[in-house]
Amino acid sequence: MSSSPSEHAGESAGELDDSFHVFDTTLRDGAQREGINLTVADKLTIARHLDDFGVGFIEGGWPGANPRDTEFFARAQKEITFKHAQLVAFGSTRRANAKASEDPQVRALLESGAPVITLVAKSHDRHVELALRTTLEENLEMVRDTVSYLVEQGRRVFVDCEHFFDGYRANAEYAKSVVRVAHEAGAAVVVLCDTNGGMLPAQVQAITHTVLDDTGARLGIHAQDDTGCAVANTLAAVDAGATHVQCTANGYGERVGNSNLFPVVAALELKYGKKVLPEGALREMTRISHAIAEVVNLTPSTHQPYVGVSAFAHKAGLHASAIKVDPDLYQHIDPELVGNRIRMLVSDMAGRASIELKGKELGVDISDDRELVGRVVERVKERELQGYTYEAADASFELLLREEAEGRARRYFRVESWRAIVEDRPDGSHANEATVKLWAKGERIVATAEGNGPVNALDRALRVGLERIYPQLAKLELVDYKVRILEGKHGTESTTRVLITTTDGAGEWSTVGVADNVIAASWGSLEDAYTYGLLRAGVEPVE
Amino acid sequence: MSSSPSEHAGESAGELDDSFHVFDTTLRDGAQREGINLTVADKLTIARHLDDFGVGFIEGGWPGANPRDTEFFARAQKEITFKHAQLVAFGSTRRANAKASEDPQVRALLESGAPVITLVAKSHDRHVELALRTTLEENLEMVRDTVSYLVEQGRRVFVDCEHFFDGYRANAEYAKSVVRVAHEAGAAVVVLCDTNGGMLPAQVQAITHTVLDDTGARLGIHAQDDTGCAVANTLAAVDAGATHVQCTANGYGERVGNSNLFPVVAALELKYGKKVLPEGALREMTRISHAIAEVVNLTPSTHQPYVGVSAFAHKAGLHASAIKVDPDLYQHIDPELVGNRIRMLVSDMAGRASIELKGKELGVDISDDRELVGRVVERVKERELQGYTYEAADASFELLLREEAEGRARRYFRVESWRAIVEDRPDGSHANEATVKLWAKGERIVATAEGNGPVNALDRALRVGLERIYPQLAKLELVDYKVRILEGKHGTESTTRVLITTTDGAGEWSTVGVADNVIAASWGSLEDAYTYGLLRAGVEPVE
Repeated sequence: MSSSPSEHAGESAGELDDSFHVFDTTLRDGAQREGINLTVADKLTIARHLDDFGVGFIEGGWPGANPRDTEFFARAQKEITFKHAQLVAFGSTRRANAKASEDPQVRALLESGAPVITLVAKSHDRHVELALRTTLEENLEMVRDTVSYLVEQGRRVFVDCEHFFDGYRANAEYAKSVVRVAHEAGAAVVVLCDTNGGMLPAQVQAITHTVLDDTGARLGIHAQDDTGCAVANTLAAVDAGATHVQCTANGYGERVGNSNLFPVVAALELKYGKKVLPEGALREMTRISHAIAEVVNLTPSTHQPYVGVSAFAHKAGLHASAIKVDPDLYQHIDPELVGNRIRMLVSDMAGRASIELKGKELGVDISDDRELVGRVVERVKERELQGYTYEAADASFELLLREEAEGRARRYFRVESWRAIVEDRPDGSHANEATVKLWAKGERIVATAEGNGPVNALDRALRVGLERIYPQLAKLELVDYKVRILEGKHGTESTTRVLITTTDGAGEWSTVGVADNVIAASWGSLEDAYTYGLLRAGVEPVE
Repeated sequence: MSSSPSEHAGESAGELDDSFHVFDTTLRDGAQREGINLTVADKLTIARHLDDFGVGFIEGGWPGANPRDTEFFARAQKEITFKHAQLVAFGSTRRANAKASEDPQVRALLESGAPVITLVAKSHDRHVELALRTTLEENLEMVRDTVSYLVEQGRRVFVDCEHFFDGYRANAEYAKSVVRVAHEAGAAVVVLCDTNGGMLPAQVQAITHTVLDDTGARLGIHAQDDTGCAVANTLAAVDAGATHVQCTANGYGERVGNSNLFPVVAALELKYGKKVLPEGALREMTRISHAIAEVVNLTPSTHQPYVGVSAFAHKAGLHASAIKVDPDLYQHIDPELVGNRIRMLVSDMAGRASIELKGKELGVDISDDRELVGRVVERVKERELQGYTYEAADASFELLLREEAEGRARRYFRVESWRAIVEDRPDGSHANEATVKLWAKGERIVATAEGNGPVNALDRALRVGLERIYPQLAKLELVDYKVRILEGKHGTESTTRVLITTTDGAGEWSTVGVADNVIAASWGSLEDAYTYGLLRAGVEPVE
């Protein structure tokens, strides 16, 4: 027996009315992205984030099609008290020449308990014939029968017209007849899907407009990003009268991906002035975008509109001086509206103004001391000529800034010398050994360690040597390591730059080292990483 | 004295007429992207790729503003014979209350020798007052004076109206007057720039349309991707009558990035049916996109429209069987049109065909031997899982192919063991020493050498040891060395991939090595480099 939707929390009404739908399909269509493989626990966590964000509908998967999705619906309704969203089950119209009421796939949709069901229907004539292998008329019957049966059973039904735009261009009358039949059978929304993602905004707008005029159905839009226009296509459909947008978090989806939820809702709220999320939700957008990326185990895109860490980063010296005067002149929205922040990048293109702003950002206000600012600008330029880059190494920049401001470098240890040995043995294995000779708190320390590479061995030797004196170092962990060879034209005689990201559990920082070889560059970056870690921990420098 | 543009190769005309401009600014605006830091050698390489691709204009930087850009213009015109593109220098209108003919910044533009100059001009009234700190009238004079002076000097001038769209919304009359003045002063194109990137396509289209009507100037569009709509905004301006599009390869640029060259030209050629690139160029798009990503040392985006490795990847399931019947039903374009390919994610059927093709390309026809092709496919898959990449390492691939075809590896020497030592001395200098123990032609060789880094020391030790037996090695020189850390989440414990390019004066080849540390990975790549060099020299393997 199917359970009645009224028993379920998934139905809880949001504070927004039904006139516009933000419909998320991260858990169904987004999960098609290459490299994403979600467990039920992952799906539950993402559903909570999406509900926190305030989307109206969360499409959770295809119950019955795989056991994971069936389990998700059962657990989501038991374990999550939805504040805003309604849970949606995705499925297909019934099989050809059968009854919807007797189709096991349709029954699984009812049994999921989801109050809303999205049915995928074919609307492209060739797909009906080649993929479904049935007649155009029978396909219409399949839509009519399945929609009316599910509506009779008390469910709200949305119909996804698969390949709608390609279908419209091949046979407009047939494509529209599918919309009309779904609408007449009781579908609350008929969604025009650009399944292959080949459309451009002008086409989407014109076709959506005509279909709305000709059918009178409430229309939705489902866009894919194969032309790089999914967000614009979604907005073009809204311009033409669509009142339901299907998106995925961070644009995850098959091939290039789906229409990205975040820029779509940001445009609707901030550019259209349309309230589509609960009060205050937009300010959580950056956090939620990154949290979902964590769950699906993909690095958050640094360059994603609105929410990327680079989305409000400024590099050019040209702009930096004017940004001080009026930041609104150089950003299309206040980043705080989406929970992001402005960042100044330090680079050789930057001048005094960006160094001052960067200092402020790091909590070191040096703007009153023009001579000091000048010294810092000079040192940054000189070091960037050597190959250093500070835009990706905030911690090294802060150490440089403090050194100039305080008149001496922060030093927790002094290096006498170090040595790294990599040995390839006759049996094919490698031995990596490093020795460091240091002074800390007046004591001379000699430490040796092995590692799975020379840099790892140096890292371990440094810890072995210092941890007794600075127990704070035990918490430090290297989480990213990047090597860049700077002059590609001199073979192995090039200059090497190493960027290291370190964490102490509470935060992350990045440091840079440059030298004529990768080991020495890594050492420079490691030294900064440990020094900054001790500075963060509030340890007083002793050397 | 400024040099005359007619002396320079940068002027060479392309085969397309002047009625539509594909203008690339990867080297200027693209270089603003966080994490990109281009050397002059990098810029020259990218310019060659862009010219191969067939863009009409390559904006190379701001000569005079920094020494790197000045050097780029000097070298580009000496070292590159452009097939299609004209070189463009970027600069600013003259200072307030001065003469363009006496402005050193303007002089540097002329001295660059570039036949085309893009001048950035303020068109937003508040920017004129707050950033330029001059009057609205003087700003118009700056535009008029600078454009006419450069035109008099025989240069073609494009004017970038910075912050145009925001300016238009604040003060439409003033924004239009800047366009009008630039046009009247002789600017060939006036470019409307969405500098803050906040526009949506409908706005861009409406404003571009009005400006075109009201000024009669030839218009261009420069879009930034802050709303996720840069490609759509570019196309919206074209719809409204713009005939010049400014883009960057892979959408690199400040903050979120610029309008991405690749989906823009693909849409124009494949969706609009507009010829904007030389014949055959579009088929090189995927290769060129990835090659440029290599040069800037950013991982190519797997999900980039048209050119990403996932752009035509299909997960098995609903679609898989139908794709076999008619792939056109499931992809918006034929991926071969852009040099990409369809990929089935479960059973990779494409593997065999590309390996056969690759073999043919290398002069080793293995297509008759299905079993052999299968073995090579398996080995490539297995090694790529370990982190090898053969796309950029033809020589390593050929060695692998020959090993499978000939039943044994080509060996000119056998390695017993090697060792590299890097030592940091109390005086701050580094000692790098390597020892190799080898067997060649029945002889045991022990050789030690120093270098300016551990890899350089290993390289020298290998030569010292082998050159007496293989004098052919004396000609070999390492010309490029690239390191990539493959898993960013394990700090210094990651897997390392090293790509080395070697030349013998007559040609270049690339080899790959993968290991748990950078020294061992470099060694693997070096071994292949020397083996391939001896194979090329026609030396018979002896081991």
